[in-house]
Amino acid sequence: MAGLVVTGTPRTPLDLVDTLAEYSVATVHEAQGRTGLLASAITPIQSGTRVAGSAVTVTVAPGDNTTIAVAVEQCQEGDLLVVTPRAPCDMGYFGDLLATSLKTRKVRGLVIDAGVRDVADLQAMDFPVWSRYVSAEGTTKGNLGDVNVPISIAGQIVHPGDAVLADDDGVVIVPCARVAGVLVAAQDREEKEEISRARYLAGEIALDVNNMRPMIEAAGIRYVDYSMWKERRIS
Amino acid sequence: MAGLVVTGTPRTPLDLVDTLAEYSVATVHEAQGRTGLLASAITPIQSGTRVAGSAVTVTVAPGDNTTIAVAVEQCQEGDLLVVTPRAPCDMGYFGDLLATSLKTRKVRGLVIDAGVRDVADLQAMDFPVWSRYVSAEGTTKGNLGDVNVPISIAGQIVHPGDAVLADDDGVVIVPCARVAGVLVAAQDREEKEEISRARYLAGEIALDVNNMRPMIEAAGIRYVDYSMWKERRIS
Amino acid sequence: MAGLVVTGTPRTPLDLVDTLAEYSVATVHEAQGRTGLLASAITPIQSGTRVAGSAVTVTVAPGDNTTIAVAVEQCQEGDLLVVTPRAPCDMGYFGDLLATSLKTRKVRGLVIDAGVRDVADLQAMDFPVWSRYVSAEGTTKGNLGDVNVPISIAGQIVHPGDAVLADDDGVVIVPCARVAGVLVAAQDREEKEEISRARYLAGEIALDVNNMRPMIEAAGIRYVDYSMWKERRIS
Amino acid sequence: MAGLVVTGTPRTPLDLVDTLAEYSVATVHEAQGRTGLLASAITPIQSGTRVAGSAVTVTVAPGDNTTIAVAVEQCQEGDLLVVTPRAPCDMGYFGDLLATSLKTRKVRGLVIDAGVRDVADLQAMDFPVWSRYVSAEGTTKGNLGDVNVPISIAGQIVHPGDAVLADDDGVVIVPCARVAGVLVAAQDREEKEEISRARYLAGEIALDVNNMRPMIEAAGIRYVDYSMWKERRIS
Amino acid sequence: MAGLVVTGTPRTPLDLVDTLAEYSVATVHEAQGRTGLLASAITPIQSGTRVAGSAVTVTVAPGDNTTIAVAVEQCQEGDLLVVTPRAPCDMGYFGDLLATSLKTRKVRGLVIDAGVRDVADLQAMDFPVWSRYVSAEGTTKGNLGDVNVPISIAGQIVHPGDAVLADDDGVVIVPCARVAGVLVAAQDREEKEEISRARYLAGEIALDVNNMRPMIEAAGIRYVDYSMWKERRIS
Amino acid sequence: MAGLVVTGTPRTPLDLVDTLAEYSVATVHEAQGRTGLLASAITPIQSGTRVAGSAVTVTVAPGDNTTIAVAVEQCQEGDLLVVTPRAPCDMGYFGDLLATSLKTRKVRGLVIDAGVRDVADLQAMDFPVWSRYVSAEGTTKGNLGDVNVPISIAGQIVHPGDAVLADDDGVVIVPCARVAGVLVAAQDREEKEEISRARYLAGEIALDVNNMRPMIEAAGIRYVDYSMWKERRIS
Repeated sequence: MAGLVVTGTPRTPLDLVDTLAEYSVATVHEAQGRTGLLASAITPIQSGTRVAGSAVTVTVAPGDNTTIAVAVEQCQEGDLLVVTPRAPCDMGYFGDLLATSLKTRKVRGLVIDAGVRDVADLQAMDFPVWSRYVSAEGTTKGNLGDVNVPISIAGQIVHPGDAVLADDDGVVIVPCARVAGVLVAAQDREEKEEISRARYLAGEIALDVNNMRPMIEAAGIRYVDYSMWKERRIS
Repeated sequence: MAGLVVTGTPRTPLDLVDTLAEYSVATVHEAQGRTGLLASAITPIQSGTRVAGSAVTVTVAPGDNTTIAVAVEQCQEGDLLVVTPRAPCDMGYFGDLLATSLKTRKVRGLVIDAGVRDVADLQAMDFPVWSRYVSAEGTTKGNLGDVNVPISIAGQIVHPGDAVLADDDGVVIVPCARVAGVLVAAQDREEKEEISRARYLAGEIALDVNNMRPMIEAAGIRYVDYSMWKERRIS
Repeated sequence: MAGLVVTGTPRTPLDLVDTLAEYSVATVHEAQGRTGLLASAITPIQSGTRVAGSAVTVTVAPGDNTTIAVAVEQCQEGDLLVVTPRAPCDMGYFGDLLATSLKTRKVRGLVIDAGVRDVADLQAMDFPVWSRYVSAEGTTKGNLGDVNVPISIAGQIVHPGDAVLADDDGVVIVPCARVAGVLVAAQDREEKEEISRARYLAGEIALDVNNMRPMIEAAGIRYVDYSMWKERRIS
Repeated sequence: MAGLVVTGTPRTPLDLVDTLAEYSVATVHEAQGRTGLLASAITPIQSGTRVAGSAVTVTVAPGDNTTIAVAVEQCQEGDLLVVTPRAPCDMGYFGDLLATSLKTRKVRGLVIDAGVRDVADLQAMDFPVWSRYVSAEGTTKGNLGDVNVPISIAGQIVHPGDAVLADDDGVVIVPCARVAGVLVAAQDREEKEEISRARYLAGEIALDVNNMRPMIEAAGIRYVDYSMWKERRIS
Repeated sequence: MAGLVVTGTPRTPLDLVDTLAEYSVATVHEAQGRTGLLASAITPIQSGTRVAGSAVTVTVAPGDNTTIAVAVEQCQEGDLLVVTPRAPCDMGYFGDLLATSLKTRKVRGLVIDAGVRDVADLQAMDFPVWSRYVSAEGTTKGNLGDVNVPISIAGQIVHPGDAVLADDDGVVIVPCARVAGVLVAAQDREEKEEISRARYLAGEIALDVNNMRPMIEAAGIRYVDYSMWKERRIS
Repeated sequence: MAGLVVTGTPRTPLDLVDTLAEYSVATVHEAQGRTGLLASAITPIQSGTRVAGSAVTVTVAPGDNTTIAVAVEQCQEGDLLVVTPRAPCDMGYFGDLLATSLKTRKVRGLVIDAGVRDVADLQAMDFPVWSRYVSAEGTTKGNLGDVNVPISIAGQIVHPGDAVLADDDGVVIVPCARVAGVLVAAQDREEKEEISRARYLAGEIALDVNNMRPMIEAAGIRYVDYSMWKERRIS
């Protein structure tokens, strides 16, 4: 049943993708109602990089990276490869040669729920990667997965053409149709955070900046002096 | 029962805290008899930083960071926030806004047995953090934990006001009443290590520097030449 | 039964070891038929370093680093220490003093399936380490393991004198007798990759560079346009 | 954005679900081309039970089981609840009261990528559960997820109404539209396995039963006698 | 600093301990405000057993079970041994001989954040154990921890004499002074659950039994029919 | 380089293997000087079974079980299959058909550092298995590993013909040449434990049975009464 490659899939428009990259993963995750975040085990191999792209989705057979090679042909400028094996297999499905090929095609990066290798080269050539493992263990060729069908990766569903945003905090998926709305909410959130930040810098604290005192009162907060606590061992 | 905030808790004096930061976590851990080390899963988000502070202890409800906001109000210069959720919950309880607020109050850093987010910002603003995860997953508000009561975190009990020392090796807790004594032992240990280091640099080895030959004799060490070992497969 | 130290074990010749360090772990792993790689949980504490050495093998008693001290005496220039505890014990068996001693003896580095400490110092003194954990937890002394007998570490058998190659991707073991042959295969592989890389940079893709189209045809690849896929939900 | 409950979702017909339960998870997984298997970390709390049902999909807010209560109302005979939290949170979202309610409604069981509690009661009342954890840690109420939208759980996408089959080996998802076809393939596979089993019992081995000798020849198998191997250390 | 044995520590009265054992871990955990639960990684080696006891607390040196032998002498009828190593060490600190000794002294069981061995014997002799691992790896003797001082184990602080309750769901700690109050709350909770259970059996659902409809309304729940959802892809 | 099958390898004599099965894994592990134990992550799928056999060693290509089929042909009565993949791959390499074949050949069981499936069938047919995972995920065929060469599995080296002993505590390897000696030591140990057990049942404790009081004195044990400890907070 594997071996399906869907061609001509829609993309998130490049200008939206590029605007998305102006916001952090944390901001965008909040802006779309705390959804879309990949599991925290998917971490960057580099530091200080943020990229966004339009998802080309790939499933690979366990221990076999043939389908990544197939997917390269489907990639265009602004895409970002999102790869998951059909069963967990801690091997290096991706290295510097595939990265060279993708970079030549102006692909923005790779998110993979498996291992990558040649990480020093990948960093040197500035091809950003978020992965679960680093492993030099090579894969075989000959077994197929699928390209550009909906996939389940690290706790999220990704459709081809969804926007993918990744930085040092992790990776968030924004469904294609929601990107424009999320950008508005992200901008709004950031402006509010700017105002809050100024108040924090001026010495105010979150209980006041976020008007939380009624909430903690309602939740039953009790302030007890240490001398009294020590004596009575209040708990 | 949650929602208790103990105010006016004692601190480790700032001068002791600052002297403690002159020693490494490994040295201080040894100096207090190999106790007080948090589990190795608590790792720094930055590299090359060592800080010490007086613990402000916090428990948070799972997936809810309200109590961190409550704790900020209890913080003063030289404090270090030590946070653990009541149940493991892999989310980002702490980000750049709370860090801004704590930094304004001259808090030394954060140790948290959970996730943090905005790590690029935290690094850029030089607010040191040791955490179990990095996760952009936002938390809710409205459920309370406690502030400045004894907590169990990553295998150690921490009382409010205990000294906390953290560097690239991890985090060690020194009970307030023991800091002065530990400093003496740490200084002593460091002086001895200086002497040992000079001997190592001069080519001596640990068996002699630490006078270990009688010990390994007693433990039954046997030296066998390879040619004989190969023939007889001694084991 | 423990406490055996085999002396006078053979080494991989230094010139071979040094030539090996010209190739990456991923290349050498492939060059010897995808064998010899340690588990990916063994990671470098530094970044951007590649070293090769001749293995001095060590087993340590759980939570006791005495045998590392014993092994130092058996080390010579070009060696690389390979250490595993007899039972998993998440402690710091190795720190800056032992590193100072090894560096003085021109030992190339350490691979350990356990914890190390003083990592900031180890990085500063440029002594490369690959380990499973970072932990400041000190070990005791007095219990023995063995030195320079075959060991099982992170999924591989290592014999004393085997070549060890380590970089940012991990650690690979090359049996002493196979190093010369592996070097030929590695050089061959690298030349082929150079040619491939040029083709990728020119815009060709792996399906053509590696002549994979017949293989994916045989595996049953099917290309379907998105409009048709969407309508029929082919899978 | 959370809080969506889709009502009137389609089901896999009950007779198909019941026929599916005649086959093992391993057989069905193979019969649909090695797809649909949840990660092996999702394990049964009981032993020796196999059930199938039509999926009612649920996402819960981290540490909050409100949406399970909402989902119960959407359940009917033959359903099987499939639950995942939006972020990993190791707590007990489900216990004997919810099980009592579901059992009363003739729901077949629960699959949850999180914790459950009251496992002794659940076993005693014969309500089958597959979960990632057992944890008595209680959840809060008040935050919503969604019911009967497509979810990503343990590496698979599950749509409401998909067939779910679970036994001691784990859990497999069969998309509603494919169940009939998979049943044919499963029956076919089982018949073939019956024939194979008879041959194995008669002493034949897989190399012959599956006609694998040409394959292993092509793959380069080499048979070497131990005496020769020992002498030359062939590898 | 290690090696401290505190004698004559207080106990939770036996009648309270025995009454506590009438309630489940989940109920007691709720009854004391969702506190006191050990991490879910601490699991029973047997099935279907519930016990309660008065804690005798023990820290052991990593890989050394001497202090358990020391603790046995401090045990009396109704006690339950609670053991944690000072650093994680996956070995078998406890087996059938120590169990024989404890059983003879009418100790109720063992909770250990490490490994145990002889599990078939322990089950056969009906000595209940909750542990993190099963491991036959033997420990050494000669290094000390402490007995009957407060310890941090699996996320909780345990004082000597605290009540410990353990069943198939895990382990919960009730501070000695709170046991009486918790018993009242547990009884109350169980009575309420009995009433709820009857309503569930009668076909009512949690939304009504717990009066949750206003809460989910307030949280913004939206019910959408599948036909409409499918058309508009509401999310 | 893979694909090597060594034929005619030596076995541990059947009578020795059968005598070994009279002792527990814990006893044998101790009897050979606390060596040879596989990592505790390798657990039985059944309960209450102890078996011993002569190792037939197998490496499999990741996600490919061809070599197990090859190994079956090399098996004879009294053998026990010991299998490890060349890279970690969480799949089900072994199920009821291969078990049927092995059982027909009077093979004693399977130890595998990977996944198995059909566990309910394996239990029903009484074919004992120790594995790292249970997973229904099927493997491919066509890639080779080796049979009857030394392998590294779960922290131990296993040579073909080594004795393997497995029970509820785990798996221990005894090198062929050492079995006779280990049996003597095991018998000796068991006799001593019988004597100790009688003393424990009579109420004596380990401090006396094992004459540990001088040892704990030397280690610096201090007994302090609770009333004094509470006052001075001795530590």
